[in-house]
Amino acid sequence: MKPGKIQGMNHADKGDKFDVDLTVKDGRPEAFDALMIPGGLFNPDVLRVDQNALEFARHFFREHKPVAAICHGPQVLISADLVRGRKMTSWPAIQIDMRNAGARWLDEEVVVDNGLVSSRKPDDIPAFNRKMIEEFAEGRHTAAAAA
Amino acid sequence: MKPGKIQGMNHADKGDKFDVDLTVKDGRPEAFDALMIPGGLFNPDVLRVDQNALEFARHFFREHKPVAAICHGPQVLISADLVRGRKMTSWPAIQIDMRNAGARWLDEEVVVDNGLVSSRKPDDIPAFNRKMIEEFAEGRHTAAAAA
Repeated sequence: MKPGKIQGMNHADKGDKFDVDLTVKDGRPEAFDALMIPGGLFNPDVLRVDQNALEFARHFFREHKPVAAICHGPQVLISADLVRGRKMTSWPAIQIDMRNAGARWLDEEVVVDNGLVSSRKPDDIPAFNRKMIEEFAEGRHTAAAAA
Repeated sequence: MKPGKIQGMNHADKGDKFDVDLTVKDGRPEAFDALMIPGGLFNPDVLRVDQNALEFARHFFREHKPVAAICHGPQVLISADLVRGRKMTSWPAIQIDMRNAGARWLDEEVVVDNGLVSSRKPDDIPAFNRKMIEEFAEGRHTAAAAA
């Protein structure tokens, strides 16, 4: 959301720093073929109240491009009202928020629903990456959310 | 949830350490006249999947004892299905989760609904404390949640 450096984290240890290439405000979603929303407690909590981030996410559903989200990442999709009727998983603590928002929540390491890939937690990352790459590479379509 | 020490936090700085008097598993809710659920990103996320914590919270609603929650604290009440039909506020990012769970969400520094006191964020703490003390002192009743 802001230009500058971001700090990688590996559990409680600080990881490498990376340059921010582009903010969600300046980035044009048209320039991207797919969207991956990472987790963590902090980032989705901030992104989900940012209208630019929600509009950015909505583009991929509207244009039927593949989307992946893990851990607390699906909170962004709840706030953009994009989980209704979708088969998904997430960090288990937000399962009730997902269900209340209309998702069909499954307790599986990775759930794929028409180009929408979701996983629960860091342990699921290998399965998540495998399915995400598969969906992104094959350009499978993310169906538009129910109105 | 675990015996031992807890670390106070003041923004990113570590604060004082305190002894844990009692875990939510060993504590009997009957021994308490009121419940205050603090916020933070981490604690409510852990508490809301702990069945002992949810059952602990339900006791106060069932017995019509006053309850207060601030910031992300109301997530615990979402998971215990205790916000339905209640007039409440919370950390704004979880507003949609509160509404989807049936709460009537208001953007006010403190909301009081029949002994249920809620606030949005650290800046609201003075108003939150004032109302909480008032409700707790007068022993106002928390109406049972709608079934």
